[in-house]
Amino acid sequence: MIAKTPLPPYYAVIFSNLRTAVEEGYSEMATLMVELAEQQEGFLGIESVREDLGITVSYWQDLDSIRNWKMHVDHQVAQQKGRTDWYKAYKTRIAKVERDYGFEK
Amino acid sequence: MIAKTPLPPYYAVIFSNLRTAVEEGYSEMATLMVELAEQQEGFLGIESVREDLGITVSYWQDLDSIRNWKMHVDHQVAQQKGRTDWYKAYKTRIAKVERDYGFEK
Repeated sequence: MIAKTPLPPYYAVIFSNLRTAVEEGYSEMATLMVELAEQQEGFLGIESVREDLGITVSYWQDLDSIRNWKMHVDHQVAQQKGRTDWYKAYKTRIAKVERDYGFEK
Repeated sequence: MIAKTPLPPYYAVIFSNLRTAVEEGYSEMATLMVELAEQQEGFLGIESVREDLGITVSYWQDLDSIRNWKMHVDHQVAQQKGRTDWYKAYKTRIAKVERDYGFEK
């Protein structure tokens, strides 16, 4: 569940969001978008959690792979539906991971 | 709930974690650490969500403010208890936010 990413540098897209009450189509699309993202070149991993606030962090090899995913035609449809139906607010942050460290029992 | 961060560049610390079953002291410490982080110089905001996976993203002005917070004596105690008691695994990623954009209804 914690993404197994390679050594830095790589990129993170931090997508923080608040949902509307509209459920129709959302969970199917969310599942589909994760499956599709995983197939994209440069995809490194994804972590996603929701309470009221949702945070999805996807990890990517470089800015080009992020740009290609943003522009993917099916993802564009999902983004559009996100703005009209599913999200009350969101913020997307593109960040270069410079360092990481971890711990596992 | 979505952090109101300034214009990039700034830094994100993405803390992805899995908890043990140990509850004792955890939620009090988590609350305390957020309150303490908010008082640190260079702190810009925080977003935190948990299901099984927990993701806390804190935002900081620069690497120095992140380093100072990591070294804060009370935070050191919390980190130590985190490794012995509360966390099964975690990964911390230090990332420079280069670009952000958002949407609000």
